[in-house]
Amino acid sequence: MLYVVGIGPGGERYFTREAEEVLKSVDLIVCYRGYRKYIERFKKEVYTTGMKKEIERVRYALKEAERRDVALVSSGDATIYGMASLVYELAVKDGCRVPIKVVSGITAASISSGLLGAPLNHDFAVVSLSDLLTPIEVILKRVRCALEGDFVLVLYNPLSRSRKEPFLRTIDIIKEYREKRGLDYIVGIVKNAGREGEECRITTIRDICDNLGEYMKFIDMNTTLIVGNSNTKIICNKMVTPRGYLDKYKI
Amino acid sequence: MLYVVGIGPGGERYFTREAEEVLKSVDLIVCYRGYRKYIERFKKEVYTTGMKKEIERVRYALKEAERRDVALVSSGDATIYGMASLVYELAVKDGCRVPIKVVSGITAASISSGLLGAPLNHDFAVVSLSDLLTPIEVILKRVRCALEGDFVLVLYNPLSRSRKEPFLRTIDIIKEYREKRGLDYIVGIVKNAGREGEECRITTIRDICDNLGEYMKFIDMNTTLIVGNSNTKIICNKMVTPRGYLDKYKI
Ligand SMILES: C[S@@+](CC[C@H](N)C(=O)[O-])C[C@H]1O[C@@H](n2cnc3c(N)ncnc32)[C@H](O)[C@@H]1O
Ligand SMILES: C[S@@+](CC[C@H](N)C(=O)[O-])C[C@H]1O[C@@H](n2cnc3c(N)ncnc32)[C@H](O)[C@@H]1O
Repeated sequence: MLYVVGIGPGGERYFTREAEEVLKSVDLIVCYRGYRKYIERFKKEVYTTGMKKEIERVRYALKEAERRDVALVSSGDATIYGMASLVYELAVKDGCRVPIKVVSGITAASISSGLLGAPLNHDFAVVSLSDLLTPIEVILKRVRCALEGDFVLVLYNPLSRSRKEPFLRTIDIIKEYREKRGLDYIVGIVKNAGREGEECRITTIRDICDNLGEYMKFIDMNTTLIVGNSNTKIICNKMVTPRGYLDKYKI
Repeated sequence: MLYVVGIGPGGERYFTREAEEVLKSVDLIVCYRGYRKYIERFKKEVYTTGMKKEIERVRYALKEAERRDVALVSSGDATIYGMASLVYELAVKDGCRVPIKVVSGITAASISSGLLGAPLNHDFAVVSLSDLLTPIEVILKRVRCALEGDFVLVLYNPLSRSRKEPFLRTIDIIKEYREKRGLDYIVGIVKNAGREGEECRITTIRDICDNLGEYMKFIDMNTTLIVGNSNTKIICNKMVTPRGYLDKYKI
């Protein structure tokens, strides 16, 4: 049996009971090298590989799952930019008939939303800025469509040392929309949510543009950005997108 | 202290350890009447109200939190169409200075994605079809923008006995895009995820149109729909949106 398990952002308190029980029950845990620290407490045999070795990792998990119970661990949710789709694709390619079960976890968007306040309390769009597997033109078109629809916009994989262009062009597009609507965008930035070094900032797209170098030093691959919609407000120092109750009931 | 707690879809196995501990520690739990069954096991004082009584519920929780520890419970995540934004808004309106903490939970989109396969393994947009608090024109514009951007589209609050128009018009828009791109849309439907009566169907927009009456009987307010993007596939009877590894590495 192969379990594809999302563990949330890392810390024990974000594991669901289901993830906890699955990891206690399996014979082998397979994960990205950097997540070993989150699953060591289960005292299981562990197989890890580094970044960009996803295919190797998934193939090993599938092969081993033919003879024992295996958990393939993703951070956050196992489907949202996680390993689950690759598991299904490779299982079919390789003719592997192991039963597969996804165990859901709290994704970075949820945890970041709760830390910032409640920016995701209305319709939102989630875009990964990594152009490793997606053409940059597709990414930028999605950013435009999300802003055009006045979605709250969540950005995963915003920036790495070698990949700056999608981020810079996304900031340019948001700037363009800011001018078009004559209203600044509130932006929440969450780094290392639920992990050592957790840090949140609430700012605006104008401030990000004015201090771009500084923000580009702060934002890294463990960071999620949430760009508010035209209704997003700062309330009690929190970033909040109202759902509309107060307007509706004239409070 | 006021905790705004997401408990996931309901069943015990979806609670995070943090939600579990908070609910064990508080003096009072406030929630929607229908969720009482999920928190009864904590054996606490419970205050519930019915649907559309959100303001009353939140105000009661805020008032009580001035003198004891209170948990206001949402299903799924506490921010995603949950109670968190209303808490912040009313706290400010009512001049209430209670400390507020959001405890994140697994949202319906994640749990539905894992049950269907891995449809949310690439960029996605989340739209609520309830026009109770949002003008229908805003909802439909977002549906269009999401399809225009080839996002996977997640629909919350799809249909209720008294609210059918946003659903019907959304189906029409998806049909229009199907004709435009000459490709059918795969649709996953998840009812009562993680609860009694859990049921999943994977179909296409064409089949939904051909059997609209039947689907409208099946889909209710405890249902989430996931509409695939142009890359979404059915693999091993699961709905999967590839992230792009196989293309990239020519596997
Ligand atoms: C490959 S994706 C994996 C997402 C994961 N499956 C999920 O559902 O959260 C990695 C991206 O998720 C976001 N992320 C993951 N963990 C995070 C954390 N602890 N704090 C902030 N962002 C995080 C960042 O944007 C990061 O670049
Ligand atoms: C008011 S919203 C609350 C969403 C919740 N805060 C969350 O994050 O999942 C209610 C909608 O969420 C979706 N939903 C909530 N629980 C669900 C479940 N167990 N199964 C399927 N859909 C669910 C449905 O679309 C429903 O109409």
